[in-house]
Amino acid sequence: MTNVPTSTVRERSNALQSEFMHIRKFTEYLVEPLTIEDFVIQAIPDVSPPKWHLAHTTWFFERFILMSYSSTYKEFNSLFDHLFNSYYVTIGNPFPRHQRGLLSRPTVKEVMEYRCYVEENLMDLLEHADEELLNKIESLIELGLQHEQQHQELLLTDMKYNFSINPSSPVYREKKESKDESCPPLKWHQFEEGLVEIGHEEKGFSFDNERPRHKVWIERYMLASRPVTNGEFIEFMEDGGYHSPQYWLSEGFAAVKEQNWEAPLYWKKIDGKWYYYTLSGLREVNKAEPVCHVSYFEADAYARWAGKRLPTESEWEHALSLRELKGNFAESGFFHPHAQYDERKFKKTYGDVWEWTMSPYSPYPGNKPLAGALGEYNAKFMCNQLVLKGGSCATPSSHIRPTYRNFFHPDKRWQFTGFRLAGDVK
Amino acid sequence: MTNVPTSTVRERSNALQSEFMHIRKFTEYLVEPLTIEDFVIQAIPDVSPPKWHLAHTTWFFERFILMSYSSTYKEFNSLFDHLFNSYYVTIGNPFPRHQRGLLSRPTVKEVMEYRCYVEENLMDLLEHADEELLNKIESLIELGLQHEQQHQELLLTDMKYNFSINPSSPVYREKKESKDESCPPLKWHQFEEGLVEIGHEEKGFSFDNERPRHKVWIERYMLASRPVTNGEFIEFMEDGGYHSPQYWLSEGFAAVKEQNWEAPLYWKKIDGKWYYYTLSGLREVNKAEPVCHVSYFEADAYARWAGKRLPTESEWEHALSLRELKGNFAESGFFHPHAQYDERKFKKTYGDVWEWTMSPYSPYPGNKPLAGALGEYNAKFMCNQLVLKGGSCATPSSHIRPTYRNFFHPDKRWQFTGFRLAGDVK
Amino acid sequence: MTNVPTSTVRERSNALQSEFMHIRKFTEYLVEPLTIEDFVIQAIPDVSPPKWHLAHTTWFFERFILMSYSSTYKEFNSLFDHLFNSYYVTIGNPFPRHQRGLLSRPTVKEVMEYRCYVEENLMDLLEHADEELLNKIESLIELGLQHEQQHQELLLTDMKYNFSINPSSPVYREKKESKDESCPPLKWHQFEEGLVEIGHEEKGFSFDNERPRHKVWIERYMLASRPVTNGEFIEFMEDGGYHSPQYWLSEGFAAVKEQNWEAPLYWKKIDGKWYYYTLSGLREVNKAEPVCHVSYFEADAYARWAGKRLPTESEWEHALSLRELKGNFAESGFFHPHAQYDERKFKKTYGDVWEWTMSPYSPYPGNKPLAGALGEYNAKFMCNQLVLKGGSCATPSSHIRPTYRNFFHPDKRWQFTGFRLAGDVK
Amino acid sequence: MTNVPTSTVRERSNALQSEFMHIRKFTEYLVEPLTIEDFVIQAIPDVSPPKWHLAHTTWFFERFILMSYSSTYKEFNSLFDHLFNSYYVTIGNPFPRHQRGLLSRPTVKEVMEYRCYVEENLMDLLEHADEELLNKIESLIELGLQHEQQHQELLLTDMKYNFSINPSSPVYREKKESKDESCPPLKWHQFEEGLVEIGHEEKGFSFDNERPRHKVWIERYMLASRPVTNGEFIEFMEDGGYHSPQYWLSEGFAAVKEQNWEAPLYWKKIDGKWYYYTLSGLREVNKAEPVCHVSYFEADAYARWAGKRLPTESEWEHALSLRELKGNFAESGFFHPHAQYDERKFKKTYGDVWEWTMSPYSPYPGNKPLAGALGEYNAKFMCNQLVLKGGSCATPSSHIRPTYRNFFHPDKRWQFTGFRLAGDVK
Repeated sequence: MTNVPTSTVRERSNALQSEFMHIRKFTEYLVEPLTIEDFVIQAIPDVSPPKWHLAHTTWFFERFILMSYSSTYKEFNSLFDHLFNSYYVTIGNPFPRHQRGLLSRPTVKEVMEYRCYVEENLMDLLEHADEELLNKIESLIELGLQHEQQHQELLLTDMKYNFSINPSSPVYREKKESKDESCPPLKWHQFEEGLVEIGHEEKGFSFDNERPRHKVWIERYMLASRPVTNGEFIEFMEDGGYHSPQYWLSEGFAAVKEQNWEAPLYWKKIDGKWYYYTLSGLREVNKAEPVCHVSYFEADAYARWAGKRLPTESEWEHALSLRELKGNFAESGFFHPHAQYDERKFKKTYGDVWEWTMSPYSPYPGNKPLAGALGEYNAKFMCNQLVLKGGSCATPSSHIRPTYRNFFHPDKRWQFTGFRLAGDVK
Repeated sequence: MTNVPTSTVRERSNALQSEFMHIRKFTEYLVEPLTIEDFVIQAIPDVSPPKWHLAHTTWFFERFILMSYSSTYKEFNSLFDHLFNSYYVTIGNPFPRHQRGLLSRPTVKEVMEYRCYVEENLMDLLEHADEELLNKIESLIELGLQHEQQHQELLLTDMKYNFSINPSSPVYREKKESKDESCPPLKWHQFEEGLVEIGHEEKGFSFDNERPRHKVWIERYMLASRPVTNGEFIEFMEDGGYHSPQYWLSEGFAAVKEQNWEAPLYWKKIDGKWYYYTLSGLREVNKAEPVCHVSYFEADAYARWAGKRLPTESEWEHALSLRELKGNFAESGFFHPHAQYDERKFKKTYGDVWEWTMSPYSPYPGNKPLAGALGEYNAKFMCNQLVLKGGSCATPSSHIRPTYRNFFHPDKRWQFTGFRLAGDVK
Repeated sequence: MTNVPTSTVRERSNALQSEFMHIRKFTEYLVEPLTIEDFVIQAIPDVSPPKWHLAHTTWFFERFILMSYSSTYKEFNSLFDHLFNSYYVTIGNPFPRHQRGLLSRPTVKEVMEYRCYVEENLMDLLEHADEELLNKIESLIELGLQHEQQHQELLLTDMKYNFSINPSSPVYREKKESKDESCPPLKWHQFEEGLVEIGHEEKGFSFDNERPRHKVWIERYMLASRPVTNGEFIEFMEDGGYHSPQYWLSEGFAAVKEQNWEAPLYWKKIDGKWYYYTLSGLREVNKAEPVCHVSYFEADAYARWAGKRLPTESEWEHALSLRELKGNFAESGFFHPHAQYDERKFKKTYGDVWEWTMSPYSPYPGNKPLAGALGEYNAKFMCNQLVLKGGSCATPSSHIRPTYRNFFHPDKRWQFTGFRLAGDVK
Repeated sequence: MTNVPTSTVRERSNALQSEFMHIRKFTEYLVEPLTIEDFVIQAIPDVSPPKWHLAHTTWFFERFILMSYSSTYKEFNSLFDHLFNSYYVTIGNPFPRHQRGLLSRPTVKEVMEYRCYVEENLMDLLEHADEELLNKIESLIELGLQHEQQHQELLLTDMKYNFSINPSSPVYREKKESKDESCPPLKWHQFEEGLVEIGHEEKGFSFDNERPRHKVWIERYMLASRPVTNGEFIEFMEDGGYHSPQYWLSEGFAAVKEQNWEAPLYWKKIDGKWYYYTLSGLREVNKAEPVCHVSYFEADAYARWAGKRLPTESEWEHALSLRELKGNFAESGFFHPHAQYDERKFKKTYGDVWEWTMSPYSPYPGNKPLAGALGEYNAKFMCNQLVLKGGSCATPSSHIRPTYRNFFHPDKRWQFTGFRLAGDVK
């Protein structure tokens, strides 16, 4: 970081404290509409109870910073190191993931006290940190905050899933008015072959999985100007897409049959019309919006049906990394993807829906995971998952980067996931 | 009921109102120590969330009485007929049992309002009932109250299971002091062969599965004076009981291996001593108490190991039906079995632990289930279950009868279940 | 056996040898139509490969007689004690049941050599047995032969199941001609209440589960003159029986849904007509025959639909024990139930189909299992099963007795199982 | 193929006939040691019965060539199109894979007749083919033969698995003598960064997944001179490798725990020594041989433990594509990997063990699957699998190519799979 003018220790500490409290409070803003009961439930093992997210993100700061760098810190509750460790097996024995929704204690109140306690201690540590300490913990706090932002998105996606199985279709927040009735026609952008660079440079924060920046040879290709819409996806459905094995990966069609997929997650047909459950309740499907809550398998099948393919992560990043980082993110308060040309003039590159790529989630050449337990953060998941790009309507806007590599298994649908088409050019 | 002097309509109505409110309030007393979060969880499909019990018992009164017999009653929430129907498939489509713990809504507050609403309407119906109406609904209300008492017991057993998987071993109620350090030596009582009668006479309330009273031929037999104790069961364990297939039913030993049984449910060994989780937290096992939370398989294996057998339900009822209906029931506030000769002088026939019999749960000769949907109450479960007798420390004292037939599958352990030995006499 | 004139040792030995070889050869007759490949397969864990039956019945004689009572006997292959032990866990570690169809070795030829070897050794042992030895082994050989007969029936039922999943519908034996187009009208026989005796007297062979003969009080009842027919069962089906939960036990209706039952096992509808797979290939359903391959759940549901019930085992035995032991058994070579009044004049009490009773399979009062490992033969299965009476078209005729207690789980359908109605009489 | 001098039609036809019969006969050579019973079994869904392999490879020729290009061909048995279609869902409804071992019919004899019938018809078709027809079917026959060779390898790996669960450890072929007691020390070869080409050129046969040849940028790297040996892998095991989650992918360690992995597949410890089941029976582990029957998860964990990584498929192909295509293949008759410097002087690049790469199995840029149903051959499996290179001791020698891409799921171990280390160079 030689070309950044060094802040004084105090300035750096103040900036960090401010960012810390800002992000922590956004978490609490997100859970404001919840009843105490909502904090407890876990409808499937993939999702976690809101209470658990609140505590786990706090545990992250306690375990990786306060327990290591504060000589005076007293652990809040020693049981929490078992209950709120997610998957760091090298430093403990995490409570079984699929049972997180079976714990009524600690209560929401106790978890909120835990949050305050850790926040106060961390603020205190920062307040009195000298340069040497600050140099050590700055990047850990930054990591903890990026981590908290990931869980802000998960809070939203997990609550949505939890609510979706309740026959009362609970409303998380009332729908804001918007006039997103249309979307622009699809255009194709063409890119030349060549040796390009992708991945994150050392400057500024990135996860270890985004590094190092490295060369990739790409062939000529074309990329769609926007993601596939609900209306376009309905054409696939009406053409028998879910019943036509020739469009599907073998494991994809097996998932269709085992899980009885007939449409994207949350969709149901009522009196001949498609509706979906949203965080504002059950609504009629808007054909102009990007299709959302589809698995990689569905995205891939649509692309074959359309005679196209999904982009690689290199193609996506090469083509779109210079676009403005604006879009429909969590802060907009919609918590739902939008059609493109509404009055807010969102550009359709970032936000709205995470876009599946055809790239398996593998380490970049020369990649080095973080040292110690934090090396478990990303590296051990580099198998059987696919990379997604661009962020969604549930992603905090300051969390996304062009080089960001999100990743999920190809059959998962509860994230805000959509896709954009690509194609070869001879 | 010809030999009972007929009460006036008003007296009968008042008595019923009083009994109704008394039992309903006892339910609420039982959930007083719970946090809101405790009301939501369901650790295994066998148990239900406390919230669900509160609503389901209320739904029973709404569905079978108010909806049928009150011309002015307005349904509280039409969705509740789906959510809180347990298993009455002839009148609806019950919400899936294993997902009861995934519903955060309705909230506890809404469920409590539901209870009040139905109570007020039912009290009002009773208040204005004429003789004709009273004749129709009296037995239904009685059934609804007996049903609510069954769920009072389930509330306790289900909370216990839910709490037991929490590493913090929550305390439901602090342990009351008691001096139950010893139990009397086992005595054998002998009974002669003959034609006896068991089952409920038409007088007073009984479930349809207790009727009709009927003749049974029994051979000479002997019956133990008290249930098997923890100390006696530990001898079985220390003699390798859980590792000796020769004592077990084939399905029993399969359960031992699949579920890794090494001791009764809730037991764990710490530093060479046996502890168990109780509703007062983790405590050292008291050897003088009746062994509890054992399956039929374990009871049966112990009996074979001891060279004895379990009694039939006829033997149990024939021998013990004249004993006083006193014992350690839910009202005692212990919620845990006691050794026999403590200062409260409980007799060891009723209360403490339900006693497994060797009798499969089958209909009595000439048995007729209730008409309509209420015929589903008992009859459709008469397969693959065993009869238990006597009530437990979680049974309301006014709920038990000598003819009472409780029933569970042979591998179930989360009820307060123990057993007493019997034997043949040549 | 004091009232039986004692045979000389030689006569007894000769008679036993003759019976032994007769029964052993019938086993081989039954597998004559099989290809070598047919001997290997096991389509579900419930069934065993024919090869396994041939070896296991042989192992029974080797293990319980030759290894214990012949000083010169040399074990054929020590591995067989592991491979062909079915479930006698007190004397060994049986090879996993569900993997029996994964063993290509020993080959059929080796198994046949094993049979010959054990037969020769057993004949030799009998040939030279003195009275003391004969007294010891006579009842064991008798047990071994009854055991072999049970496996003759299982050979047929298991082959039928194995073949049934082969799309080529293999023919085991060509259908014999028969003119069984009609069945007699159903009549009801009434029986008075009283103290009756059921169970086997000590005279002659019986399994330990049939003893002792004992008193049972039965109420007045009525019993159908013949089992329910295919035609009658089709009426139940056409009245929506499989879709009407009110007729079903709770676990029964769960089985209907989980296993997608729409008709008895082996039935399929082709162009609007019902066909079933038989050991003579696919044939059109004959409405006059007793319905077969139904579970207890289906029998019980039919009975409720018909406003009747199944008989208890006491009622069945009391009513039918004096009927002649004739019927359509395995020796007839049909291997399929027949309608009643065909030219062979079968009486409709024994043979054709095993009849489900409503009696759970429990020990008789005072029952004592055989000593040692043979006590595992019956006793450890006395849980979650129901008693069936009367034998089937796959039962060897010399194997059936009025007191015979067959038993299967209530969801099993691959045996030749049907049922007869009973009813209460006020 | 313009630069290849065109053979006359007759020469081409003769060459094809000769190659066809040569490869078909090798299949039959491989099953010569089997008993009829061995042909039937399928120990896990991953493997197929030998009988099925014999029929399926034949079906491939019948379905894709004779049925389409012979006007006189009469289908052998119309049921076979259902039974022996593996996974081509666009042209039919394949018989369920996991039930292949439940079919005793058609018999081995019938399958052999099927083979002869199709062979005769295909030879006849070739014999009379004119140039136009030959041009159409030549590449299909070539594909069918490559396909048959893949199944030759599967025959061996599947028989090995089937036999391995038989407690008698059957010997497929007696072990040939060899003196492979040592292996050379590991050397590291270094390669420079640069733009390289991998994939198959259009000349000669290749599967569609090997095409097109394309550019890849690779960074500097080093590659081991030989695969990891049993001795080296034992060091990992003895260092607690299977109990140290820090070396494992998250899904890998889950597999370790769920499947109780303690060593490579087929290994068992007897009296303190490691043995493995081989196609020559149970033998002591030879430490000098390449470790075999390890999953990707185990290969990856070993590499992390060793501070290295697995190579990418590009690195492997770039480094080793010029090595001589010699090695220990199926024709050697060993059916087991060898240590390097035995008297036969095998080079350690091809043969012995398939080598896991870290490259997920994805389509090459610009890849086009074959048209029609044959497009299902490879493309639909491009998800959740990893690429393996180099062939094994069960691969026919004429089947392997430097560009060959084998692929399996990361938890699979029943193929002859090992691995070679790679590393980054700064």
